[in-house]
Amino acid sequence: MKIRDYCLPCLVNQVVKVAHMSHAQNKEELYHQVFDYLSSLDFELTNPEIIGQTFQMLKKHIHNNDPYKEIRRYYNDLFLQQQDYFRDLIEKADDFFEMAIRYAIIGNIIDFSPMHNHDINDVMKYFKNIENQRLTLNDIEKLKDDLKNAKTLLYLGDNCGEICLDYLLIEKIKQMYPDLMIYFATRGEAVVNDSILEDAYYVHMDRYATIIDNGDYSLGTILHRVSPKFLDIYHQADVIIAKGQANYESLSEEVKNIYFLLMVKCHVIADDIGVDEKSLVCFHREE
Amino acid sequence: MKIRDYCLPCLVNQVVKVAHMSHAQNKEELYHQVFDYLSSLDFELTNPEIIGQTFQMLKKHIHNNDPYKEIRRYYNDLFLQQQDYFRDLIEKADDFFEMAIRYAIIGNIIDFSPMHNHDINDVMKYFKNIENQRLTLNDIEKLKDDLKNAKTLLYLGDNCGEICLDYLLIEKIKQMYPDLMIYFATRGEAVVNDSILEDAYYVHMDRYATIIDNGDYSLGTILHRVSPKFLDIYHQADVIIAKGQANYESLSEEVKNIYFLLMVKCHVIADDIGVDEKSLVCFHREE
Repeated sequence: MKIRDYCLPCLVNQVVKVAHMSHAQNKEELYHQVFDYLSSLDFELTNPEIIGQTFQMLKKHIHNNDPYKEIRRYYNDLFLQQQDYFRDLIEKADDFFEMAIRYAIIGNIIDFSPMHNHDINDVMKYFKNIENQRLTLNDIEKLKDDLKNAKTLLYLGDNCGEICLDYLLIEKIKQMYPDLMIYFATRGEAVVNDSILEDAYYVHMDRYATIIDNGDYSLGTILHRVSPKFLDIYHQADVIIAKGQANYESLSEEVKNIYFLLMVKCHVIADDIGVDEKSLVCFHREE
Repeated sequence: MKIRDYCLPCLVNQVVKVAHMSHAQNKEELYHQVFDYLSSLDFELTNPEIIGQTFQMLKKHIHNNDPYKEIRRYYNDLFLQQQDYFRDLIEKADDFFEMAIRYAIIGNIIDFSPMHNHDINDVMKYFKNIENQRLTLNDIEKLKDDLKNAKTLLYLGDNCGEICLDYLLIEKIKQMYPDLMIYFATRGEAVVNDSILEDAYYVHMDRYATIIDNGDYSLGTILHRVSPKFLDIYHQADVIIAKGQANYESLSEEVKNIYFLLMVKCHVIADDIGVDEKSLVCFHREE
């Protein structure tokens, strides 16, 4: 989906908050540069691509290619420590596959990009209340069918921390479909707190999946910007699981067998999908 | 006070919401223009001046010099209808002057500029709950002393609707200090829902005060932009009452006998004044 004008304040908010968070010097110079870019913004682009551009500006401005490195590590460690506990709860559930998906989606709330104001206490509330967190859109049975017949799954990751819940879902998928070839994709470069290659290896995603990065610094998966290698895998995959808003925003109009798993964090995405804000969804957009 | 970078998302939010509210065509062109202006923004300016500039861009873009005309009229009518009721409550209060000030400050919540998300129900809740709405900063006794010794008061208005509560306070001031010469100032041109000349006459402010406009299209009172006539009155006034955030933002550093009456609507202003958000304040910044 193209950027909506209602995204512009959030975009600017993100730049300001990240500038503070990363202790940028000469912030005004950075803002001038970002506004200059926005003054000729192509409204045909998607928001994740635009955020990628502004985040590149920030990285150059602060001479730091990975300002969220420590934050990513912190949340990966936090959720790695709880992985056994969550795995146990998934195993005990009536429908363990659905529960693994619910955890993976709720993991999507771990979004410390400053666009969405969730703090760690909010996140934990969602986890504690998981029994009451139902999926507003639920195409899990269809996903199961598709996975049964698939040779290759491409799983598009999203945030740090969340990746530890993706791990549990992928572990479950591998148990259920041992012959399935699974690729786990990260962003090509650091962008806000999204997972990059080092996060995927850090949480040992390579036990079940072949880890690749998409070769691009955008926030989601911008097909005209990703590496040829990633694009090959994308095209050959029988099933794609796309986590998070940015992957939805960048792939919502693709004709491809994609399941979108996300928590809906703003009214723009809610309107586009046709659900309420804060919904948890696992859905397949018909081709 | 100079604009803070935390104001930038709000500024962009306002442009987007007003563009929608006024049914602007070619919104993207307008946004490009606004971002082009922001790309060389002078961070020494105050926010009300910057908002004035972006609102001018909007007015030119939509070929409408007063997009909030009907909204202003609607809220003036709404509060004119309740003026007798509010006057009665003020008369019955133990300290009628303080109560008139509290109503005038709570009137400051009638801010339908889309930067602050108050709807009419929120506004009415404040009015109903006025007994519990105490002033966090209260220089009312000092204001009374100053008015007793003053020859001229300049009252700087703020929003539509609110102006009906300003009227009640000014009525009270005139009763208490019948010899006081009172000027009531509006913005020089339509800017969001702020009161302009026609609003002041519409609510009959000329019964008690000489109505003037400040000659400028900014949101607050930008002294280097106002008309010479306004500036003369400003300089000769013994006491100034400045309503609302925009007047605070534009005059907070002036060396002048000013009483700021406002509801604190955001963390930037709260930090600058040194109170919590949503505080009601009537205070004199020492020269």
